[in-house]
Amino acid sequence: MKTVYSPLHAGHAGTMELNSGELMPGFEKPSRAEIIRARVESEKLGPILAPEPHDLAAARRVHRADYIDFLPTIYPAWEESGRSGSAIPFTWPTRGLRGDVRPETIDALLGFYSFDAGAPFVKGTWDAIKSSYEVALTAAALVKNGERTAFALCRPPGHHAGDAFMGGYCYINNAAVVAQWYRDQGAARVSILDVDYHHGNGTQQIFYARGDVQVLNLHADPMVEYPFFLGHADEKGEGAGEGFNLNYPMPFGTTFETWSAALDDACGKLAAYAPDVVVVSLGVDTFEKDPISQFKLKCADYPAIGCRIAKLGLPTLFVMEGGYAVDEIGVNAVGVLTGFEEASRG
Amino acid sequence: MKTVYSPLHAGHAGTMELNSGELMPGFEKPSRAEIIRARVESEKLGPILAPEPHDLAAARRVHRADYIDFLPTIYPAWEESGRSGSAIPFTWPTRGLRGDVRPETIDALLGFYSFDAGAPFVKGTWDAIKSSYEVALTAAALVKNGERTAFALCRPPGHHAGDAFMGGYCYINNAAVVAQWYRDQGAARVSILDVDYHHGNGTQQIFYARGDVQVLNLHADPMVEYPFFLGHADEKGEGAGEGFNLNYPMPFGTTFETWSAALDDACGKLAAYAPDVVVVSLGVDTFEKDPISQFKLKCADYPAIGCRIAKLGLPTLFVMEGGYAVDEIGVNAVGVLTGFEEASRG
Repeated sequence: MKTVYSPLHAGHAGTMELNSGELMPGFEKPSRAEIIRARVESEKLGPILAPEPHDLAAARRVHRADYIDFLPTIYPAWEESGRSGSAIPFTWPTRGLRGDVRPETIDALLGFYSFDAGAPFVKGTWDAIKSSYEVALTAAALVKNGERTAFALCRPPGHHAGDAFMGGYCYINNAAVVAQWYRDQGAARVSILDVDYHHGNGTQQIFYARGDVQVLNLHADPMVEYPFFLGHADEKGEGAGEGFNLNYPMPFGTTFETWSAALDDACGKLAAYAPDVVVVSLGVDTFEKDPISQFKLKCADYPAIGCRIAKLGLPTLFVMEGGYAVDEIGVNAVGVLTGFEEASRG
Repeated sequence: MKTVYSPLHAGHAGTMELNSGELMPGFEKPSRAEIIRARVESEKLGPILAPEPHDLAAARRVHRADYIDFLPTIYPAWEESGRSGSAIPFTWPTRGLRGDVRPETIDALLGFYSFDAGAPFVKGTWDAIKSSYEVALTAAALVKNGERTAFALCRPPGHHAGDAFMGGYCYINNAAVVAQWYRDQGAARVSILDVDYHHGNGTQQIFYARGDVQVLNLHADPMVEYPFFLGHADEKGEGAGEGFNLNYPMPFGTTFETWSAALDDACGKLAAYAPDVVVVSLGVDTFEKDPISQFKLKCADYPAIGCRIAKLGLPTLFVMEGGYAVDEIGVNAVGVLTGFEEASRG
C-alpha cells in the first residue's frame, strides 16, 4: 500500500485550544503525523510518496467558494490586525442570530465560518491545510488508477469541516473532497465510512441531501460527546439523500465487541449500496488510552478493522482523521492498514 | 433618583474571557459597579436601596424555562466534573448543526445555551445574576409605584442574553424582564431604548415578533463590531412585531454629533409609539476612552443623553448594561442620570 505524505503539515504547530475553561496546547499536533509516518516505514507498508500539486477546484466542489477563499486570508488578516499566536474566533452565529450576512472583520469572519474554538490558525496552517488536501487527492488518484488501496496521511484532518465551516481541528474536508472527486471522475456511487471516535458532522452536513454519496458514521453518542450537535441515530438524510446517512452513536466505555458489531452492520449497508469506491475516514481515537476519548478498543483490534473493510472487496482509500494517543497512533493507524493488506492478500 | 444595588454582584469576579486568541481577565469586572455606586453617593443622586427578593417567575416570562433552570446548575456541574476556574463553552450549534436536541453534559449544555465564550461562570456568578435580576425588578417597581425614574445598578448586564442563550457578559436579560413585567402589570406598551455601544442582540431576539414592546438600538455597525450577527438596519421586526424594532448601526469613530442625531430620531419614534414606560439599557461604552469600543463620546456628552431622554416626559427606568473604561464609568453613567434629573426639574 502506498502512502502519500507531505512535510508541510509540520508548520501547523504550536496551536492553542479552548478546553475546560483554559487555553492549552492543542492535542492535534505534528508528532501525530510523524509517528504514523515512522510506523509506515518501520512496518514496510510500502512507498511514501509526495503529493502532486492541485489547485482548489476540487475543494470548491464540496465547500462554498467564499469559505475556501477565506481560508488563506485568515492568518495575514490576523497579523495585520496586530495579533500573533493562534487566530481563534470568540463569538458565533448560533440560533436566533443571523448566519446570512457576512461580516467584514477577521474576528467576526472566524466565527461566521466555524462552529467552535477548535480550529486555530497559526502562520503555517494554510500551507498545511493545502498540503493535506493535496495528499488526499494524490492518494485518491492512485486508487482511481488501479491500486486496490492507498493511504492519505492527511494532517490536519477534515471530517468536522462542513460546506462553510471549520471546527474540531478541521478546515478542508479531505474525505468529502475525494468522494466528490471520484464522482466527478465517473464513479456512480461513493461510500464514506467514518470510524473516528467523533461524529463526522462536516461530512454528514455536506452530503445530507444527496443519494450519490453514502455516509456511515460510527462514533460516541453526541448526547455526551463532541461534536454534540449532530450525529444522532435519527439523522438519516433528507430529500434525495433520505436513507443514505447512517449514524451509529455508541456510549462511553464501548468495547470492540460492541463497536465491531456496528462496523459489521455498517459494512452490510455499505455492501448493499454497492459503491464504486470506499473512502475510510480513519480515526484511531477509539483507542482505550486516547487522552480525549472514552471507547475501549485495544491495539490488537485495529488490524481486525482493516480486515473487515478489506472483505468488502472494493477499492478503498484511507484518509487520516483523528487519534491523540500519540505513542500508539502509529501502531493503531498502520495496524488498520496492515490488517487490510493481509486480508486482501489472503 | 433612587438607585437599587446589591453587593452580591461582587462574587462574579475573576472571570476569564477569550479575546484575540488568548484567555484574559474579563473586562466586565466588579469594580465597574463599585465605581458607579461610589459616584451615585458622591453626586448625591439619591438613596441607594437593596433589592427585594424575587423568585424567577418574571425571568421565565422572557426566557425559556429550560434555560432559566439550567443557569443555577452550571457551576455545581462544572465542579462536579472536576474543573474549577471559569466555566466556558468550547463548541456551539451553529448553522448546519442541530439546535433542537438538548445534550446531556455540562460542556455541551454551555454551548447549547450560549452564542460565545464571553459569559463565563465562576462560583459566585449565579448569585450575582439573581441579584442583578432582583435589582432590576425592584427598581422597576419604584417607577410603577409613582417615581418618575429609578436606576437599576445591574451587574452582570443583560442585553446580549436572548430567550435561551447567554453571551457577551449577559445571562438574564434584565431590561427585557422588566419590560415584560410592566406589561404584566398593565402597561399597554413599553419601549426599550438601548444606548449601549454594542447591539442588544438578546433584547431584539426576545421581542422581535411582538408589537407591544418597541425596541430601539443605537450601536456600532455589526459588520465590524461585536456581536456581529444581529443589529443591521434592515431588521425591523416580524409578524406582529413588524416596524417595532429599530436599529441605528453607526461606524467606528462616531462622535456625539452623529450619535445624538440618531438618539433624536429614536426618541421621535419612541414618542410616536407613546409607551406607558421607557426602559433604558444604559451602556456607557460609547465613551472615547472605552478599552474595547470605537465611538468618540466625551464625558460632557452623557448629561445631554439624560436630558434628551427626560424630554420624552415618560416614566423611565435606567438599567445598567456595559461600559469598561472603569475610571470614567461612574462619571458617565451618573452623568446620564443627573442630566435626566436636571431636565426633569427644569
